[in-house]
Amino acid sequence: MKVETISYEADGLAMESLLYLDEDKAGPRPGVLVFPEAFGLGENAKTHAERLAELGYAALACDLHGEAKLYDDLATVMGLLEPMQKDPLRTRARAEGGLKALRARAEVDSGRIGAIGFCFGGTVALELARSGADVRGVVGFHSGLATARPQDARNIKGKVLVCLGADDPGIPPEQRADFEREMRDGGVDWRMHLYGGVVHSFTNKNAARLGRPEVARYDAGAHRRSWTEMRAFFDEVFA
Amino acid sequence: MKVETISYEADGLAMESLLYLDEDKAGPRPGVLVFPEAFGLGENAKTHAERLAELGYAALACDLHGEAKLYDDLATVMGLLEPMQKDPLRTRARAEGGLKALRARAEVDSGRIGAIGFCFGGTVALELARSGADVRGVVGFHSGLATARPQDARNIKGKVLVCLGADDPGIPPEQRADFEREMRDGGVDWRMHLYGGVVHSFTNKNAARLGRPEVARYDAGAHRRSWTEMRAFFDEVFA
Repeated sequence: MKVETISYEADGLAMESLLYLDEDKAGPRPGVLVFPEAFGLGENAKTHAERLAELGYAALACDLHGEAKLYDDLATVMGLLEPMQKDPLRTRARAEGGLKALRARAEVDSGRIGAIGFCFGGTVALELARSGADVRGVVGFHSGLATARPQDARNIKGKVLVCLGADDPGIPPEQRADFEREMRDGGVDWRMHLYGGVVHSFTNKNAARLGRPEVARYDAGAHRRSWTEMRAFFDEVFA
Repeated sequence: MKVETISYEADGLAMESLLYLDEDKAGPRPGVLVFPEAFGLGENAKTHAERLAELGYAALACDLHGEAKLYDDLATVMGLLEPMQKDPLRTRARAEGGLKALRARAEVDSGRIGAIGFCFGGTVALELARSGADVRGVVGFHSGLATARPQDARNIKGKVLVCLGADDPGIPPEQRADFEREMRDGGVDWRMHLYGGVVHSFTNKNAARLGRPEVARYDAGAHRRSWTEMRAFFDEVFA
């Protein structure tokens, strides 16, 4: 497994992302952008990017806040997200920087790019799709669905899958219903998988760090299932 | 492929169901009950039972109205369903008859039984679970979710998966929300997969017969996906 730091500018920030590649594989392969949780490019996104590379994809684990900064204070992070949530064009700019960098690689089949994301990273993946970028499919894991620009759903070119804990207090039924309307109104090819008894951060083995299991909790079953469903989804969209 | 008619009494009716088995396979295998659409045991349920048998399961395509009666008039069928919808114990009795017959077979591992159903057949599978029957998992394809006895969800022993068209006019968002509450209140291990742009009968290649594509329409993508998701689900519950 080769891991390479990829530097690029996006939204005025000096991004330092990590490209995971199976060196033993020859020729161009589909590329997948991996967007991390709101705290920045941490272990969870990196681990999943590595797993994607093991499956034969070129996976770019994307920096979010510039200079690979990683935060651990929720209040600080909320302050950093606020301008991005108010203006999704800024979120999209950060994602597009990663897309451009990934697409430029000789190892990547530039016509076959997808994106995944965890928590706020799922939001980033969805915003990239709403920008009208040429991505074949995006997958959000316990991803926030709300956007300040729902009217942009009509720009979405690829397919959309969101995998959600049905009991995630951060993504309540009303938010899901709004998303459903947005996707329908936008004529999107979308799907939503809901897991009963599952809350936020179900893919993150360190979710217990937050100390609020009723809000964020690792769930091995939902983690495994959602990953399998993502694999089938990428098999479909990259076919 | 061996197909055998299995006769049993249930809810006062003389049931004639069809057991599909791969004869080349030795020893007990998991059994799956297959419940048909409201019209009775027709092609769609039989075809899917055969596909299950090809996968190595013992699949019982279940009679619904007795004497393998098949109807083609919707008004007649609605009249036949009414007493079953009013009193789910009658629906459950018909399903339990099939369960008992399947479990009695030497080819079947009686500890590993599941059920699937299409349209009203999905409702039948869910009612079987609500009865407290020993089934490891049930899957409803475009299945009606409403029940006159939601309080019985607490009896459910196995896992539940429903695969739904998000635009199915017969299973509107409010019905899904009620089901979600029912499953949560009952402490059920449940999941729901929603397919955007998909309506009722997406597994049924003859759905166009109804002549109302905005209500019922075959969808090859959703058919393939939901079947793959069912296979993964059974791999999990029968492991």
